[in-house]
Amino acid sequence: MSKGTVVLAYSGGLDTSCILVWLKEQGYDVIAFLANIGQDEDFEAARKKAESLGAKKVFIEDLRAEFVADFIWPAVQANAIYEDRYLLGTSVARPCIARRQVEIARKEGANFVSHGATGKGNDQIRFELTCYALYPQVKIIAPWRIPEFYNRFRGRKDLMEYAEKHGIPVPVTPKAPWSMDANLMHISYESGILENPKSHAPADLYLMTKNPEDSPNTPDVLEIEFRNGVPVRVSNEKDGTFEESPLGIFSYLNTVGGKHGVGRIDIVENRFIGMKSRGIYETPGGTILLQAHLDIETFTMDKEVRRIKQGLGIKFSELVYNGFWYSPECDFVRHCISKSQENVEGKVMLSVFKGQVYILGRESPKSLYNEELVSMDVQGDYDPCDASGFIRINAVRLREHHRLQGLSSTTKK
Amino acid sequence: MSKGTVVLAYSGGLDTSCILVWLKEQGYDVIAFLANIGQDEDFEAARKKAESLGAKKVFIEDLRAEFVADFIWPAVQANAIYEDRYLLGTSVARPCIARRQVEIARKEGANFVSHGATGKGNDQIRFELTCYALYPQVKIIAPWRIPEFYNRFRGRKDLMEYAEKHGIPVPVTPKAPWSMDANLMHISYESGILENPKSHAPADLYLMTKNPEDSPNTPDVLEIEFRNGVPVRVSNEKDGTFEESPLGIFSYLNTVGGKHGVGRIDIVENRFIGMKSRGIYETPGGTILLQAHLDIETFTMDKEVRRIKQGLGIKFSELVYNGFWYSPECDFVRHCISKSQENVEGKVMLSVFKGQVYILGRESPKSLYNEELVSMDVQGDYDPCDASGFIRINAVRLREHHRLQGLSSTTKK
Amino acid sequence: MSKGTVVLAYSGGLDTSCILVWLKEQGYDVIAFLANIGQDEDFEAARKKAESLGAKKVFIEDLRAEFVADFIWPAVQANAIYEDRYLLGTSVARPCIARRQVEIARKEGANFVSHGATGKGNDQIRFELTCYALYPQVKIIAPWRIPEFYNRFRGRKDLMEYAEKHGIPVPVTPKAPWSMDANLMHISYESGILENPKSHAPADLYLMTKNPEDSPNTPDVLEIEFRNGVPVRVSNEKDGTFEESPLGIFSYLNTVGGKHGVGRIDIVENRFIGMKSRGIYETPGGTILLQAHLDIETFTMDKEVRRIKQGLGIKFSELVYNGFWYSPECDFVRHCISKSQENVEGKVMLSVFKGQVYILGRESPKSLYNEELVSMDVQGDYDPCDASGFIRINAVRLREHHRLQGLSSTTKK
Amino acid sequence: MSKGTVVLAYSGGLDTSCILVWLKEQGYDVIAFLANIGQDEDFEAARKKAESLGAKKVFIEDLRAEFVADFIWPAVQANAIYEDRYLLGTSVARPCIARRQVEIARKEGANFVSHGATGKGNDQIRFELTCYALYPQVKIIAPWRIPEFYNRFRGRKDLMEYAEKHGIPVPVTPKAPWSMDANLMHISYESGILENPKSHAPADLYLMTKNPEDSPNTPDVLEIEFRNGVPVRVSNEKDGTFEESPLGIFSYLNTVGGKHGVGRIDIVENRFIGMKSRGIYETPGGTILLQAHLDIETFTMDKEVRRIKQGLGIKFSELVYNGFWYSPECDFVRHCISKSQENVEGKVMLSVFKGQVYILGRESPKSLYNEELVSMDVQGDYDPCDASGFIRINAVRLREHHRLQGLSSTTKK
Repeated sequence: MSKGTVVLAYSGGLDTSCILVWLKEQGYDVIAFLANIGQDEDFEAARKKAESLGAKKVFIEDLRAEFVADFIWPAVQANAIYEDRYLLGTSVARPCIARRQVEIARKEGANFVSHGATGKGNDQIRFELTCYALYPQVKIIAPWRIPEFYNRFRGRKDLMEYAEKHGIPVPVTPKAPWSMDANLMHISYESGILENPKSHAPADLYLMTKNPEDSPNTPDVLEIEFRNGVPVRVSNEKDGTFEESPLGIFSYLNTVGGKHGVGRIDIVENRFIGMKSRGIYETPGGTILLQAHLDIETFTMDKEVRRIKQGLGIKFSELVYNGFWYSPECDFVRHCISKSQENVEGKVMLSVFKGQVYILGRESPKSLYNEELVSMDVQGDYDPCDASGFIRINAVRLREHHRLQGLSSTTKK
Repeated sequence: MSKGTVVLAYSGGLDTSCILVWLKEQGYDVIAFLANIGQDEDFEAARKKAESLGAKKVFIEDLRAEFVADFIWPAVQANAIYEDRYLLGTSVARPCIARRQVEIARKEGANFVSHGATGKGNDQIRFELTCYALYPQVKIIAPWRIPEFYNRFRGRKDLMEYAEKHGIPVPVTPKAPWSMDANLMHISYESGILENPKSHAPADLYLMTKNPEDSPNTPDVLEIEFRNGVPVRVSNEKDGTFEESPLGIFSYLNTVGGKHGVGRIDIVENRFIGMKSRGIYETPGGTILLQAHLDIETFTMDKEVRRIKQGLGIKFSELVYNGFWYSPECDFVRHCISKSQENVEGKVMLSVFKGQVYILGRESPKSLYNEELVSMDVQGDYDPCDASGFIRINAVRLREHHRLQGLSSTTKK
Repeated sequence: MSKGTVVLAYSGGLDTSCILVWLKEQGYDVIAFLANIGQDEDFEAARKKAESLGAKKVFIEDLRAEFVADFIWPAVQANAIYEDRYLLGTSVARPCIARRQVEIARKEGANFVSHGATGKGNDQIRFELTCYALYPQVKIIAPWRIPEFYNRFRGRKDLMEYAEKHGIPVPVTPKAPWSMDANLMHISYESGILENPKSHAPADLYLMTKNPEDSPNTPDVLEIEFRNGVPVRVSNEKDGTFEESPLGIFSYLNTVGGKHGVGRIDIVENRFIGMKSRGIYETPGGTILLQAHLDIETFTMDKEVRRIKQGLGIKFSELVYNGFWYSPECDFVRHCISKSQENVEGKVMLSVFKGQVYILGRESPKSLYNEELVSMDVQGDYDPCDASGFIRINAVRLREHHRLQGLSSTTKK
Repeated sequence: MSKGTVVLAYSGGLDTSCILVWLKEQGYDVIAFLANIGQDEDFEAARKKAESLGAKKVFIEDLRAEFVADFIWPAVQANAIYEDRYLLGTSVARPCIARRQVEIARKEGANFVSHGATGKGNDQIRFELTCYALYPQVKIIAPWRIPEFYNRFRGRKDLMEYAEKHGIPVPVTPKAPWSMDANLMHISYESGILENPKSHAPADLYLMTKNPEDSPNTPDVLEIEFRNGVPVRVSNEKDGTFEESPLGIFSYLNTVGGKHGVGRIDIVENRFIGMKSRGIYETPGGTILLQAHLDIETFTMDKEVRRIKQGLGIKFSELVYNGFWYSPECDFVRHCISKSQENVEGKVMLSVFKGQVYILGRESPKSLYNEELVSMDVQGDYDPCDASGFIRINAVRLREHHRLQGLSSTTKK
């Protein structure tokens, strides 16, 4: 008698293969679910592997287009950035994967979902909060938090032994001395030798970006066009290449950014769970887009609207990092940010070179930039005398404050 | 009979030379004040020029050390950045200059101060708010906002004619087709041909940083040591160079950053006065310090303290940009930020290359990073089961929200 | 030859009557505009007065319904309150009046608008920012800021003399030793003897609310029903009275609140212009609505949405106080707040007695309150063990912080 | 063999008496700790009861003075208020109690602490986060979250039976149909019949405040003097009573507030744990102090400092409500708020009547209120023309926005 059906977020790797078999061992029927969100993977091999391990069904789904349109684009609108540096490449992918996973679970009548995320990380939270939000009755099996599981598999060696015993294909190449998470937006590296915050990342770690020391000696020059705060076209000035679909645009920016070594960072960040961890990230296309979006946004958006929106963007970033993509507050913030983007429209010219993005110029039919008003050579409608009053009124409070301080220092004597 | 004494912020250039003579013409005694805040200037030539134009006294003061310690360092502690990109190089210099100017005015019994800032810009505000805050009774003469002045001098040609007529030395080299403001922290470029936001900045514009295309093909590797959130030592791993004074450290970072083309940006920003303007900035040392400080701060500061401090830093940046360095609120915010930096201590290793700063590693005696706690290979004191409860409690609200939505969608049918 | 046409915000009182005549004296054609926003005024007498003083046209418009629906209701949704206490009764009225005034100006082809607000207050700003925002080319004549006017009229005596000379009817009753501004939402009192912040307000000052010492000894019990965060019905449990139109609801709440002495405050506040001023306000209906709305909002809105919305509400209040009702940022904030109110629906029961509003109970079809979930007597779906994990994970950071502090105190020894 | 020593937060009531005996049954030595924070309790009877039940030691400690000075005073400085209405009377008491409890645990060498808080509430969190923060190694026994305990004691009946069986004195009066928590600052009521949010609270519920319908028909008039944002003296104008110690002041304000029925609220609030709950509170002295502090703070504090401080106060309130009194971020916020209070000094006159607090006037040697500057009758140093420039510059942005909108509406046609 089956205990029920579990939809397992399956990666094709050693850990989730062992989990698949272990779940069966515990009496569950297992449906393997593997999302294609742009990682480098042999999906058909993974399908066969899951089937051979006894998965009742295997779902392999190409979510790349919706990942860009539904998850990366809102992050672009928000200038989403966690703790001033991290572009949230993993954080935005988790709700995308988990959303489909619970759809499958509902459709297949599965009461359980499972995943291979560890018990100290952020991903377990992002994954599970999405599941609970979209499928409140779901039951979650997180083996790395179940004592019978984690006490049995205390290290990679235990997994390897279990794999051999249960006919799970064992990886032939030695594991890198760190762990890694890849998708269309970024690759993250952490753990292992990277846990020492002082030690430098090895030069051969990066898979998505060229080492700037080896990248081309001439820049690429791009024009990115935005509408409603999201890119609708990218073109290369040099060779005329262009892209107009979300996936096409983002992939092309990855290609150009990767070629020029854009978007590498090495940071210590604060996990939701209250620990500091060290992470290394490469986000080539996302880094280009952040710079371009900042430029067109400031060009077209009212200053005070932007201030309020900046605060909402910081809030959005925290929510997404912490796993609250599907929450009433994140819905609300996304709605407000999206509203702010109605006039964020126009073209940004930029060059990409040796790890950097240089904004060169911008134009927009909706810009609030008024060349005549700001010009030093034209007085226009602007009366400079007004500035005297503006300054003096702003000084009323400062002068009063000084008066009081003067009084108190006099009193002290 | 003199109308009184004016302390004029004198730059040595054509504009303030004309203003000096014009003020005398209006019946004032003029004291010329020229602050050395790191700009490239022949100060002795400027002194002679001012004297020859009839300045009653000339004060030339080297403010570089206090500029770094009193103004740049608080900005470093705050990670000060305006509208996500501008490092505030001009904004922090203005209160430094104006503070000394009103000290001189008080000491010399002058009731007036004057400056050559234009009527559409931010600098007039930064300058004058400082004066009013520190010397509330002062009277300010801003010629570019006085109709008799600006109607008489409608362009550079009028200034040249006036100069020739009054024996003011006229610059022999033609003026660049943009205006520029330089100090130890940065050079800004705006106006003229840069007013068209679409046109690219000319390659020969930059004076402080090498074009990354021509910068060295090997990085410099630096170690920066912080205490209380400010750098106390920088050393170059390659050649052993080191600096330990504020001015020495900052100047050295400028040298290294400049050599590698670090810190160039081209932005449209929002002036306090409500206009958008286009500015190009190069801030080599400041850009390196921002990255290094972000790193050591996140490494040593509690996550939630940092969130609150991040908000205060944004506030600080706005205040400084808008000219409120000397205000009760900026005093308050600086105090709070400074308090937050008590444990921001340690060393950051970084490399500088082709316009980029790469953080390589960090260490600190006061870090909240706990390698054992975060390690994937060690369970330590951490019980992964706790995370299940943490997630489920965080989901209570999300599930309730879903329940209500479910009810309402049912009702709708 | 006329200098052009001015639409004057005319109150019927001495000041604006003198301004009307003075404007004609200066060579303008004057259109008098008097808005009925609920103040106690003989509008027909005012019309005749304006006509007799030579107004080219007189517009008297009943704006009460749109004042409630377009201005007070958004303030209710925002829980708008300035500096923790002031309900913004004057602030929300100014853009309502000025909006109509510029409509008239446009329709009548008038290039000028004028008003009788003083040069130290907030109202001049609220008034003029609205005009500039909605009619950017307009020219504003603010006599109390024009030296020829304010030097001629240095006190009430000068106005009285001018009035007598120009056939302006002079008030027969002596002026109260304070000034006052009344509308449907509130009456404010300031200036004169109230300028001494220590002196108590006279008992006979208040016109809109009974002294609680003399108010009824039995409460009124009301039920207020909300939809989309605004009241749609109020009913009195005692006598069955009910109202369902915005104006009807608000007026009835004023009646009940006034009868029971609700909504009196005596505060020192900070004007936009940087001064502190003392104001006394009575806002009977608004105070009842604030309490009722707070109750139904917290009952129906997600906690984290509410936190974000609370920040937006504070921003909204500052914007409105400072005169930025018609600004891109206030539009944006109003949009966001309005979005947050979609589920703010239900009924609040309350009693009104001796200056106080007591919430008695509430119910809603859209409440997120779950009696079973929260009950101490039912375990329900909730597993108390989850709380242990929740607490322990929240403590991770606190324990780490303590560990570091322990280390540093050890080191210090 | 004992499993170790537990310091139990003992209340003297049925629940914690059963817990005391149950802990012994489980093999622990139990130290009973009962804090006097102003609740109405026969402390000596409680001591004897605990001893008779087998407590190894009994600590009964009068924490009232430190509760006021260390916990209530910072809340007064912060204007602490949760979700716009709740004055945090329970929230500030928990860390006060738990701080002493872990001091006793450390001193007595106890590795365990325990409490009787339920598994759905906030108090478990406030209690335990304090313990973990101050004594990171401590182990916490929360019986209401331990299945063996809560499954055994499913209702009051089970507790009663257990009590009888183990010689625990059983309360003779029937329990009120709600639960209650009392201390010097407030009494809270919740659960039982109050769980229905629609049902009105019974009139006889309140113990700390008179029903305003029965309260005196004449007000009391008080003067409260503040220094550094905390009260240092209260005096009654009528009878000359005065108090100058923290405990004396707060107790006297409770007496006067209670007599006049001040500080009753009925709210639905959001627990940290994500549920909405209904609570009824009476906070007589705290409510008077909040109004008085708001008044003197606005009178003496710069407007912009106050805006920043207001945000910090909201953050402080959330932190305290959620149990983070002893956290790095709450330390930081308390420090900043305390800094902001340096000039919050002066006297506030107020009357207390029928549930309301009416501010009558205020004076201060450090006020930023400038009667001459603000006066309508004195021009003083203020030039009204400055306001024109101030307004016009503030309008630059609004007019630009309108221009763009005009363009786009033209384009649309």
